[in-house]
Amino acid sequence: MTDESPRRRSGGRAARQAIRLAAHAEHVPFLTRKLAPFEVLDEEGLATIEENADTILQEVGLEFRGDEDALKTLRDAGADVQGVRVRFTRGMCRQIVQASAPRQFTQYARNPERSVEIGGMHTVFAPNYGSPFVRDLDKGRRYGTLEDFRNLVKLTYASPHLHHSGGTVCEPVDIPVNKRHLDMVYTHLRYSDKPFMGSVTAPERARDTVEMARIAFGADYIDDHTVCLSLINANSPLVWDSVMIGAARAYAEANQATLMTPFILAGAMAPVTTAGVCAQTLAEALGGMTFVQLVRPGAPVVLGSFASSMSMQSGAPTFGTPEPALVLYVMAALARRLGVPFRSGGSLCASKIADAQAAYESAATIQPTVLGGVNFVLHAAGWLEGGLTVGYEKFVMDADQCGMMAVFVNGVDMSENGQALDAILGNQPGVHFLGTAHTLANFESAFYRSEIADNNSFEQWQEDGSLDAAARANRIWKKTLAEYEAPPIDPGIDEALNEFIERRKASMPDSEV
Amino acid sequence: MTDESPRRRSGGRAARQAIRLAAHAEHVPFLTRKLAPFEVLDEEGLATIEENADTILQEVGLEFRGDEDALKTLRDAGADVQGVRVRFTRGMCRQIVQASAPRQFTQYARNPERSVEIGGMHTVFAPNYGSPFVRDLDKGRRYGTLEDFRNLVKLTYASPHLHHSGGTVCEPVDIPVNKRHLDMVYTHLRYSDKPFMGSVTAPERARDTVEMARIAFGADYIDDHTVCLSLINANSPLVWDSVMIGAARAYAEANQATLMTPFILAGAMAPVTTAGVCAQTLAEALGGMTFVQLVRPGAPVVLGSFASSMSMQSGAPTFGTPEPALVLYVMAALARRLGVPFRSGGSLCASKIADAQAAYESAATIQPTVLGGVNFVLHAAGWLEGGLTVGYEKFVMDADQCGMMAVFVNGVDMSENGQALDAILGNQPGVHFLGTAHTLANFESAFYRSEIADNNSFEQWQEDGSLDAAARANRIWKKTLAEYEAPPIDPGIDEALNEFIERRKASMPDSEV
Repeated sequence: MTDESPRRRSGGRAARQAIRLAAHAEHVPFLTRKLAPFEVLDEEGLATIEENADTILQEVGLEFRGDEDALKTLRDAGADVQGVRVRFTRGMCRQIVQASAPRQFTQYARNPERSVEIGGMHTVFAPNYGSPFVRDLDKGRRYGTLEDFRNLVKLTYASPHLHHSGGTVCEPVDIPVNKRHLDMVYTHLRYSDKPFMGSVTAPERARDTVEMARIAFGADYIDDHTVCLSLINANSPLVWDSVMIGAARAYAEANQATLMTPFILAGAMAPVTTAGVCAQTLAEALGGMTFVQLVRPGAPVVLGSFASSMSMQSGAPTFGTPEPALVLYVMAALARRLGVPFRSGGSLCASKIADAQAAYESAATIQPTVLGGVNFVLHAAGWLEGGLTVGYEKFVMDADQCGMMAVFVNGVDMSENGQALDAILGNQPGVHFLGTAHTLANFESAFYRSEIADNNSFEQWQEDGSLDAAARANRIWKKTLAEYEAPPIDPGIDEALNEFIERRKASMPDSEV
Repeated sequence: MTDESPRRRSGGRAARQAIRLAAHAEHVPFLTRKLAPFEVLDEEGLATIEENADTILQEVGLEFRGDEDALKTLRDAGADVQGVRVRFTRGMCRQIVQASAPRQFTQYARNPERSVEIGGMHTVFAPNYGSPFVRDLDKGRRYGTLEDFRNLVKLTYASPHLHHSGGTVCEPVDIPVNKRHLDMVYTHLRYSDKPFMGSVTAPERARDTVEMARIAFGADYIDDHTVCLSLINANSPLVWDSVMIGAARAYAEANQATLMTPFILAGAMAPVTTAGVCAQTLAEALGGMTFVQLVRPGAPVVLGSFASSMSMQSGAPTFGTPEPALVLYVMAALARRLGVPFRSGGSLCASKIADAQAAYESAATIQPTVLGGVNFVLHAAGWLEGGLTVGYEKFVMDADQCGMMAVFVNGVDMSENGQALDAILGNQPGVHFLGTAHTLANFESAFYRSEIADNNSFEQWQEDGSLDAAARANRIWKKTLAEYEAPPIDPGIDEALNEFIERRKASMPDSEV
């Protein structure tokens, strides 16, 4: 051979045709990584960032705004509270968190087979979160509706590669802001049986979420079973506001899990440097997790980190760049040292459409996500345009990548069959392996099969219409929705949920805040 | 904040405008990684694969076909030679390679500032290799010509992210097969001053390459300076053929470097399993490297691995899947244990066009390439369609990713400035960092700036024509070619090269083999 352009092999067609092409959808409820996480910083570097976080907590402190109860809780625990400013002595937050926060917890799903483990060597993929816009190839970019929300929940339910139904998969802007959480939670409970996320846009909406979980799972059950997990963002730099703190309290009181997540566009909400972003993220997250553990010691809590870089031309957030990848690896290591589950990453990009930019950027985020050992991955599928839009085609493509990750994290099979030494010794130089017994025995499950990738010849691809990956993904989500069947639900529970929603909606006028 | 959709910040415009937007093209001749490589297999697993490789070499052996001299060389060194079959006792190849092959070597460039280090913690990016077809958005897919070849050499020369001019960047099919190597080598020497690769399609073409290197660098110089590096593929399974072995001999005799690379489409040229592919790759590469060290002890040699998975539907090679990534990580670790430089990876994909499939697959190859610690990266830019085609737009996109890798491998800056503790302590909660002194001092070089990514608002992007990444890349390569200026060359050398080419071309009739 004179070059490295593999051409179709002429031999072995019969052998290949003999192989049954059954799909091997090995459904796992979450990933269990067999590979040690990739590390970018040594012990000394990590310890320095921890010290800096402690210095920030002690000298500047955090603000807990608009929530007197929170300030009282923190003061009672020994923090120095001046107005809304809360300072913590060195090591205080770490000590409180480590005293009671679980290293790992189970989030129970309506279908017990879909319950997920959050923490340790496990990784859980959840879809996009928080986008006001949706996009698909047919209708372009538009505001999301409850129908889009339902579609995305259905697509997530149908995907073997996503483990979690997520939360605000898109904003259903056709429903009033103060009521849409009811429809969103209902949609997760009715159209999926995977675990879900709750509302955080107001403390009472968090309480509504918990009420609906009580109806769906049983009131007693949820007090000692975590059934929802919600995203609590810091208002970085160094602020936790009343809405988020109120929602966090509502969930913690009910023993439900929270992702305490500093949201940092480096250069705006923190310094531009990786080590600076990490120290500040750790300080903010420690403060938030401390509050949760003071509300209810032992309530499941996850250290979150969302960090992006910035365009120097426009100040817009940028994704898939090396700097946020470094932040992710460092924060993952810091969470392991603290002994709490870690949330970060996803399939993030700044691209407006599901093109090569979107894919490069998303891949440059999801690879560190998996190699760094993230435990809970929000935005694993669908994210476009810095999160402003969720794309149907992008969703399908990203989920396919999540499927590949599930294979990768299993590492190398070193069984006798995996080593395949007999197959090599039994073969002759120059003779291909297409028809050997070992190949035939392993071929079906040997390689990850992408739904999206076109691996045909150029001529075949041309004959098939010269489609790009987005066009193929368009067909896939439509087929998936057409074939969707809802998981069963107890009619009494369904009725009770609908009654609750009706009552709550009737209790207040529509509002857009 | 209630969601994670970062919007443009209204503040700080003045601060941003105050920042001079000078390009910070920090040109490095090759990467020096500060991060330890990612490992997927433990000591025991790696040792098992080494044992299996030894078993293969001892029991089945390799075939060295059509080259009596090679068989004599191997027999004289103690190998068991029966016909063309060569068996090596356990550990023999390892011993021979470790006795004389350099752990790391310099490949000298015509411009000394562009010489590269191959081995150790260094990574060198070279462009696509071996494609008969080229593609761009204007003219579509077509056979490559010498003009395309020149264009790709020029684009590589102009890229700050590619360190090496490569070899057969595309096949110039408008030139007869038996003469095109002369034009190719000349193009590298004339239109670039980065290091280059030589011809391997016949032993005499390898000798022509060496002759031209003697003219360009000086006859004495190249005997103790490696100035060209060439790709020698095994004809897997377990065969080294006369063309490749002859070319390897020609280069080794002249102290020039070779990439001894088993080329394995798993399931065809080896078993389907990762551990099987790795054992066979190691066996084949060990045999090839042993031959090189016997020809000339100390001649620079690189352990190569090219492995792809396979479509179960068609038998076509597939790329960007998890299995080849695992092979790459394992082979990189095996090369480190052997103590030789390692070649693998690139920006490989099966996609026909520069779409999301191409980008996902390429990213899923280049990330392991860098994280695994590959020393020489062929196909780092341009590869499409399993290597059958090199794409102009894909080239530009891939090079941009290589640029990101250069930032990533520097790891985390833990200097005082990197820690940014004073900046955080000097700031107040809720106040952004856009205008702080630390941000202003670091902003220009804080983040990797992609040439391709569009980070503007949706509205701005729409106003700019709703271009996808490929369309933007199209503009970039045209601009780069328009602005290209050739590096200087001594007119006497240029004349001597042209005279040599003319003489060689006149000495033989055109041939298409």
